[in-house]
Amino acid sequence: MKLATFSAGGAPEIGVVEDDTIAALSRAAPRLVTGMIDLIARWSVLEAEVRRALVAAPRLSLKDLRLLAPIPRPGKILAIGLNYADHIRETGQEMPARQVWFCKQPTSANGPYDPIVLPRVAERVDYEVEMVAVIGKGGRYIAREDAPAAVFGFCVGNDVSARDWQMATSQWVLGKGFDTHAPFGPWITTSDEVGDPHRFGLRTFVNGEKRQDSNTRHLVFQVWDQVEHVSKVMTLEPGDLIFTGTPGGVGMAMKPPVFLKHGDRVRVEVEELGALEAVCQAER
Amino acid sequence: MKLATFSAGGAPEIGVVEDDTIAALSRAAPRLVTGMIDLIARWSVLEAEVRRALVAAPRLSLKDLRLLAPIPRPGKILAIGLNYADHIRETGQEMPARQVWFCKQPTSANGPYDPIVLPRVAERVDYEVEMVAVIGKGGRYIAREDAPAAVFGFCVGNDVSARDWQMATSQWVLGKGFDTHAPFGPWITTSDEVGDPHRFGLRTFVNGEKRQDSNTRHLVFQVWDQVEHVSKVMTLEPGDLIFTGTPGGVGMAMKPPVFLKHGDRVRVEVEELGALEAVCQAER
Repeated sequence: MKLATFSAGGAPEIGVVEDDTIAALSRAAPRLVTGMIDLIARWSVLEAEVRRALVAAPRLSLKDLRLLAPIPRPGKILAIGLNYADHIRETGQEMPARQVWFCKQPTSANGPYDPIVLPRVAERVDYEVEMVAVIGKGGRYIAREDAPAAVFGFCVGNDVSARDWQMATSQWVLGKGFDTHAPFGPWITTSDEVGDPHRFGLRTFVNGEKRQDSNTRHLVFQVWDQVEHVSKVMTLEPGDLIFTGTPGGVGMAMKPPVFLKHGDRVRVEVEELGALEAVCQAER
Repeated sequence: MKLATFSAGGAPEIGVVEDDTIAALSRAAPRLVTGMIDLIARWSVLEAEVRRALVAAPRLSLKDLRLLAPIPRPGKILAIGLNYADHIRETGQEMPARQVWFCKQPTSANGPYDPIVLPRVAERVDYEVEMVAVIGKGGRYIAREDAPAAVFGFCVGNDVSARDWQMATSQWVLGKGFDTHAPFGPWITTSDEVGDPHRFGLRTFVNGEKRQDSNTRHLVFQVWDQVEHVSKVMTLEPGDLIFTGTPGGVGMAMKPPVFLKHGDRVRVEVEELGALEAVCQAER
């Protein structure tokens, strides 16, 4: 199932994407479906009812509505760095013996087709296509073998990074945390449809030019290792996001480096999970 | 005004601390006062009504109730590193030319007297007393001179840090993000009562032994500089927390280093803002 948050002109609604239409689930079952995080948290008890409600849900054309960030305000947006061999090489780093984690802010969340703002205080804004895992039941001390059951689904993310801010101090948190710099979506594909997520091509295009092109099979630390590691530290909760790393081809590593500029169209896609497309907008 | 979140055995309530009692504000005005973040967000319109409701609010004895984290689940917990000269010296770092920021997780939030869990996967857990700024109206691009108006109030925080995890990679996010490792409170003192926050003694005691003892007047980057800097990156929202840095005296810098152990009683206090006191509990 592909779950989306959308607006048909009014307040956010939740629906299920089917080809070119969306089944307006929150119209068919308004008491059942009150918010995406709540839906994810109660999925094991709600799923059967949701599937029944879906039959009678009104169908809307995708082109008549606006897809929003599937989870408007995630509790946590965690992200792993240096997790594809070619990206590690291009940044001149060593293959890390241990997972390197940072995070983005809830206020960085952005819709799948919304503009990426190029802040007037930042000069080196870059893209990073990533597969994103959406936590389902979550928990603490999740063993590798239990990790698939803790993940609700997957989507596409762009870990937009202001390199000048990221590299200005030892800590990446500010450079990764600008408003609008965590576009994700366009919807969440549930784990049962995804199966093994370590088999998807992922690519970035800037103005149609291919910049990143790899496959999630090349992840250094697989999604399940990531869930195991980070859940040793903190309780993972429904709707928390894990950005699983970006492959080689970022603008910072081009010779000479090339950064995003006003009007650039950035498309990031992950096979079977969809694509995000944003126009970059210089902040006035 | 000193605003607290407490439980008198049942669901969390909001009250105003007056010496040894608490005025049960959410009992006196249940429709007005629905949650701390909402109260902070609407403070400018609610304050007069809150003060009127307070007159008739039932008084409870502080000793009959349990104080909880004033904001049960903050949207963001931001923290500045290396912000007192003596702490910079003791960690062998250079005085940073630029503010160094990291963050803790919403799931690290902990009550003012609740146990600090020493995780079974971490061996070097340390304390850090800090003054904490609670964002009020917040915003983006807040100029230094406008920063006082963007801050709702202040409280005490303990930036508990698992040093082995913090130093295991270049990024501090995991080492700073363990569950229970962001105790704060015991209440929020509103800005009008605080005035200039750069004049408070702050201290840590472990089992009665003084470990940290400084004054917020020694902050390298003052609170207002911090708000200006971080709001260049992200929208600060009502109830977001800013941990403003810790002075010298952390356990990691003792010779030899001393870390927290099961049963240790850790008291962190900031003059005029109160004290947190926790017993450390080894995780089984």
